Amino acid sequence: MADAESTQPTQQPPTEAPAAEGAEAPKVPSKNELKKKAKEEEKARKAAEKAARQAELEAQKAAAEVDYATEFYGKLPLNQSQSRPRRARVQIASLTPEMDGQTVLLRARVQTSRAQGSKMVFLNLRQRTDSVQALLSVAPEKVSKQMAKWAAGLQIESIVLAEGIVKKAPEIIKSATVGDVELHLTQLHLISGLETVLPFTVDDANRPEPPETEAEDVQFKRVLLDTRLNNRVVDLRTQTNQAVFRLQHGIGHLFRDFLDGRGFTEIHSPKLQGAATESGASVFQVSYFKGKAFLAQSPQLAKQMAIAADFERVYEIGPVFRAEDSNTHRHMTEFIGLDLEMAIEEHYHEVMELLDDLFLHMFRGLKQKYSKEIDAVRKQFPAEEFKWREGPEGTLKFSFKEAVDLLVEDGVPREELDDIDTTNEKRLGRIVRAKYDTDYYIIDKFPMALRPFYTMPDPEDPTLSNSYDFFMRGEEILSGAQRVHDPKLLEEGMRKKGIDPASMSYYLDAFKLGCPPHGGGGIGLERVLMLFLKLNNIRRASLFPRDPKRLEP
Amino acid sequence: MADAESTQPTQQPPTEAPAAEGAEAPKVPSKNELKKKAKEEEKARKAAEKAARQAELEAQKAAAEVDYATEFYGKLPLNQSQSRPRRARVQIASLTPEMDGQTVLLRARVQTSRAQGSKMVFLNLRQRTDSVQALLSVAPEKVSKQMAKWAAGLQIESIVLAEGIVKKAPEIIKSATVGDVELHLTQLHLISGLETVLPFTVDDANRPEPPETEAEDVQFKRVLLDTRLNNRVVDLRTQTNQAVFRLQHGIGHLFRDFLDGRGFTEIHSPKLQGAATESGASVFQVSYFKGKAFLAQSPQLAKQMAIAADFERVYEIGPVFRAEDSNTHRHMTEFIGLDLEMAIEEHYHEVMELLDDLFLHMFRGLKQKYSKEIDAVRKQFPAEEFKWREGPEGTLKFSFKEAVDLLVEDGVPREELDDIDTTNEKRLGRIVRAKYDTDYYIIDKFPMALRPFYTMPDPEDPTLSNSYDFFMRGEEILSGAQRVHDPKLLEEGMRKKGIDPASMSYYLDAFKLGCPPHGGGGIGLERVLMLFLKLNNIRRASLFPRDPKRLEP
Repeated sequence: MADAESTQPTQQPPTEAPAAEGAEAPKVPSKNELKKKAKEEEKARKAAEKAARQAELEAQKAAAEVDYATEFYGKLPLNQSQSRPRRARVQIASLTPEMDGQTVLLRARVQTSRAQGSKMVFLNLRQRTDSVQALLSVAPEKVSKQMAKWAAGLQIESIVLAEGIVKKAPEIIKSATVGDVELHLTQLHLISGLETVLPFTVDDANRPEPPETEAEDVQFKRVLLDTRLNNRVVDLRTQTNQAVFRLQHGIGHLFRDFLDGRGFTEIHSPKLQGAATESGASVFQVSYFKGKAFLAQSPQLAKQMAIAADFERVYEIGPVFRAEDSNTHRHMTEFIGLDLEMAIEEHYHEVMELLDDLFLHMFRGLKQKYSKEIDAVRKQFPAEEFKWREGPEGTLKFSFKEAVDLLVEDGVPREELDDIDTTNEKRLGRIVRAKYDTDYYIIDKFPMALRPFYTMPDPEDPTLSNSYDFFMRGEEILSGAQRVHDPKLLEEGMRKKGIDPASMSYYLDAFKLGCPPHGGGGIGLERVLMLFLKLNNIRRASLFPRDPKRLEP
Repeated sequence: MADAESTQPTQQPPTEAPAAEGAEAPKVPSKNELKKKAKEEEKARKAAEKAARQAELEAQKAAAEVDYATEFYGKLPLNQSQSRPRRARVQIASLTPEMDGQTVLLRARVQTSRAQGSKMVFLNLRQRTDSVQALLSVAPEKVSKQMAKWAAGLQIESIVLAEGIVKKAPEIIKSATVGDVELHLTQLHLISGLETVLPFTVDDANRPEPPETEAEDVQFKRVLLDTRLNNRVVDLRTQTNQAVFRLQHGIGHLFRDFLDGRGFTEIHSPKLQGAATESGASVFQVSYFKGKAFLAQSPQLAKQMAIAADFERVYEIGPVFRAEDSNTHRHMTEFIGLDLEMAIEEHYHEVMELLDDLFLHMFRGLKQKYSKEIDAVRKQFPAEEFKWREGPEGTLKFSFKEAVDLLVEDGVPREELDDIDTTNEKRLGRIVRAKYDTDYYIIDKFPMALRPFYTMPDPEDPTLSNSYDFFMRGEEILSGAQRVHDPKLLEEGMRKKGIDPASMSYYLDAFKLGCPPHGGGGIGLERVLMLFLKLNNIRRASLFPRDPKRLEP
């Protein structure tokens, strides 16, 4: 079984070629030459006789070897819904040793195909994150040699319809995720083959990533990120990516689940905007019939207007667009915002605490319901488990000033810390992890100068604001604040930041019509996913990522 | 209580105006005139004396009437999160007669304010779809006259913090949704007032819409749709709209709930596309750094690529963009697509039946969980209840050909029916409602000529296709099909529709890499909402609608 045989069927050379020499006759033959010629002719005659005998034997043998399995294998006609026999299919994940002896039918990818001699073929069949070993073994009236040869020749990544008998595996099969059974194939049909060359194999794409500091592992071909993204459809088939996007689904589900239970209403705000507003960040311009429009860089204005319209508590999951020419590991031009906004009764910490509870709900839910997926990702992206504080002391919270002090203590010059840049953010993450043993914390009370115009100033120190950021592994994943709900103060704020209030009259009007005190925040879905799993690049957390240089696939 | 008093505080005229007549003196006074003058002077003196006495009395009275309630009312300072006393607030919806005697605190809008004399004020307080009557009654040491006057002067739509004692109502109060209690106010503070004129009252905006055929009801001001949309923040405060958007939330929730239970994964596909592709429908062009991009007109390509990437079953809820200059009741340039795609085992009816089950799940869920909201909407938009078939016979399904026959029977010339246009669609809806007593049905087997290139042709008749539309009240709300998963057939289909396959190479490659047979569909969220509730215009089902003429608010 250890031999690495070709997965392609080997073309048998003809057993013996009929002799066809001496076609070129010399002009004057000598006696010796004539003798030689006669000898050669005799040799050719004998060879031809032998070949004829051989051919007759082959024909007899072939006649004896009628393919009794033609119905059991081969390419299926294109499925155009010709018929509906309603034969039940099973999932690989559901196969157990208790099913020993049962015949099952399943659709799967051929992950590997390996012939052992001419009478046995081992296939690894894959569905999403699961795989099982299947065995095709020549047997009279059931599996023909021709069927085995055909199966051995199946291209990897083909989709097959396999019928087989479940057998308890004699020993655990390590190359399959469902290792305690194997499938003894009785039928095998091709549903969809490949009509191009695979850019890389799913096996190669699924190998553990070498740590960034380590030298390249030359034993296996490493598939680089750009190659993956250019061929994203194959890349997404890895068990790692199947797990990553189940986890992305999980985050969205947990987010809504929590907020639905707290009286929030899901809203959908328009991405097409009449004016380029909100903050200094660049926006994309759209040709809109004879005029122009702009793509929303967040649902900020709409969700605040929903609060002025008495919705009380709203959330939105939708794309946000940033026309920033940033080519970093954590920027995309389009990503998914998990946004929420809520009326507050007394204090903006009501929102901050709800957001904290939301994150704890998400972390716990991922750990409890998606441990299989987390383990699958960890095989390719080894990382320390994501840590957060449980128990009565609660999530670690400190003020911006305290964060600066921690960095100064660690040796960063205070004069560099008017803002905390990405490098210092990460440094702070390491300090916090070492000192408090957590990857998750909140920084409150950011300087007003660092926040957008709609942020509520601190009631005592107008240089500070009622705003907060949430962090995972030293990177910001949420930014939020109490908002200004007083139209005069809002207008003042706009002017200070160089925004013409007239350009945002619809927004301002919402507050002139009476609006409760409120606050909220925006979470980057892909950032949470990247940092929870330590995928190191945000593109890995996006199905088909977009950045200044990538608009396809 | 039946008198329609002004909601504005009536300015009390001064008890007696000082006489100020006779300023104009004639040049030569006669005796009589002098007498008259002396009389008038005497009269004026007496009047002045009387006024002075009166003023003194008033002052004495005012001194005696120190406002003992100053702490109990007035405008609160701007909430900047100065403090957090953690006083619990209640919801109006939770008030019951059993709470009689309890003191509660709540934040609400002033829907109406009506003084009865100078000692009593009736307020209608509103939270979303709920309202309650509150009563402010002058009482020694508790509610002062000044407090009552201030309360009577509150502008409608102000947001107040009200403390009061719950009292069982002597009789049901019809003007409030919670009519079996009233609130006897002990404190009333203004959280947020209005700094502009209300474009219309929420009461006016909440009145029943006259049927389209009926003459305008002149008794009340009718608020037209454009006025509403220009002032959407106020319009959204109506009980109708609060209910409409809870129902929108409900549809999304039921959609995901059903699909999560069927093994689907939620995906988020990019809205920024490198090429203008898919179908003939116009796309919006975006300036993308030094190049250009296009807004996705559906997640069609991405969700099919996810199937080729082994996701098996996917759904997406997200914006889709259509650059069509259509100014109809059912078109918007941006709307929310509820999209799904799944691998099929044998037949595309697997998808069609799942979609049918999904709709039944949504209809039943809305009826069961959102009956309060449906009733609230019906008050403004009276409509026959939405009907669908339950029971063993299942949802009504017929073929495109049968639909045409129904129309022909009804008198439509067959030669007009190569396609079924909007008018005939509605006509069909009426025929079906009359004949089969249902507002919900499926048409299968559309002609290939009417469907996009990626639609799988019928296996026997290539002029037909494996595609279907779903209808509610005679309007299409879902379009779907089995898709072509064979790259050669797909390329052929593109060429037939005049699309250059090279422009969609990433998409084509997905199928060259092996793809299971699959199908799916796309649902318009706002259309389902509009038709379920019979809102008559899709803009009413969108928070901030976008059409060729509207990009704001």
